[in-house]
Amino acid sequence: MTPTITAFARSPDRGRGLARDMRVRWALEEVGQPYDVRLVSFAEMKAPAHLARHPFGQIPTYEEGDLVLFESGAIVLHVAETRPGLLPDDAKARACAITWMFSALNTVEPPIIDREMAKLTERDKSWHTERLPILEDRVRVRLGELSGRLGNADWLDAAFSAGDLLMVSVLRRLGGSSLLEEFPNLRAYVARGEARPAYQRAFNDQLAVFTASQPGA
Amino acid sequence: MTPTITAFARSPDRGRGLARDMRVRWALEEVGQPYDVRLVSFAEMKAPAHLARHPFGQIPTYEEGDLVLFESGAIVLHVAETRPGLLPDDAKARACAITWMFSALNTVEPPIIDREMAKLTERDKSWHTERLPILEDRVRVRLGELSGRLGNADWLDAAFSAGDLLMVSVLRRLGGSSLLEEFPNLRAYVARGEARPAYQRAFNDQLAVFTASQPGA
Repeated sequence: MTPTITAFARSPDRGRGLARDMRVRWALEEVGQPYDVRLVSFAEMKAPAHLARHPFGQIPTYEEGDLVLFESGAIVLHVAETRPGLLPDDAKARACAITWMFSALNTVEPPIIDREMAKLTERDKSWHTERLPILEDRVRVRLGELSGRLGNADWLDAAFSAGDLLMVSVLRRLGGSSLLEEFPNLRAYVARGEARPAYQRAFNDQLAVFTASQPGA
Repeated sequence: MTPTITAFARSPDRGRGLARDMRVRWALEEVGQPYDVRLVSFAEMKAPAHLARHPFGQIPTYEEGDLVLFESGAIVLHVAETRPGLLPDDAKARACAITWMFSALNTVEPPIIDREMAKLTERDKSWHTERLPILEDRVRVRLGELSGRLGNADWLDAAFSAGDLLMVSVLRRLGGSSLLEEFPNLRAYVARGEARPAYQRAFNDQLAVFTASQPGA
């Protein structure tokens, strides 16, 4: 059965692959699972039909028969647990890869989002110039720790996993800032993720939605 | 084999059960798994021996033979997947319960932490009184959505799961604020979690660490 995911009808990131459907698309491409996409408008996201699937009125959702999931992390884990390719076979190695998934979403992403939110919503506030460096330092601490652990390795554990998929996705939110440039091994790690054929297919598919939604495109 | 977790030698929350070892203790109590605790000081958390276990220098960690995990969400999931009691047997119901785990940590907790951080670190800033209500509104939006989904049910899905364990843990961070009081069903939901015998055992054990570390106690 072909799963259906939801994505923004009009991508607020202009197709740069930062919307969270990208993480699910990438996971599905990695395991070779075809999928359908249903585009939803911002109004539809907050309407009862979508809220029944996603109580927080966001994207992505994942439907496969009568199974309905939300939260990109949970969906990526479900895809990884039901198809080979994103988690090691060995139980201990699996638990370690899953640890990196939680790490990406619960330890590394929050300070990155805080910085992003400040840049989006506090630019005109009197405190913005004083507060932004504090937020950047919080991101820098996490990047330093992650950089220290990654060292010269290609991936966080032996082979590419769902943990790397989420970590690369989270770090990509720093694109265009100099923060990632301060850690060359992390920059190379992100580039390594982006070079994967599955990533590229997923990226092009989400970009096509944005391109198609542009007047005159 | 008895697992060993790490916890703060001196709990910064004064034993109110907000440190993240509480989530792991609670999970272990729910499944009836005895465990050992190794207390670490703030200096030890940032030393090489601990960083080898936890790259971000935090607690809790989880050691079981040569398996070493970090991130409370990942540890709770590991406990839930290796012992009966915290996840449904049915595969689809399991995926739904795991979705609530990610939801708690990636959608509900971040705005709660942002509010907490502002109260801890920005009290003396000129912008604090203007910014705090904005943060509280962000929390309120998530609580409203969660409250709408929970309705009159006891738990987020049919039976108590690791998803409820993490959601209750996250909501408890609002204790002492009026935000939770605005949603009587969420307040009752948290109280229902706190009334579980496993919760109480875990709470008392982490409180005992704080009490023991107090001079003259």
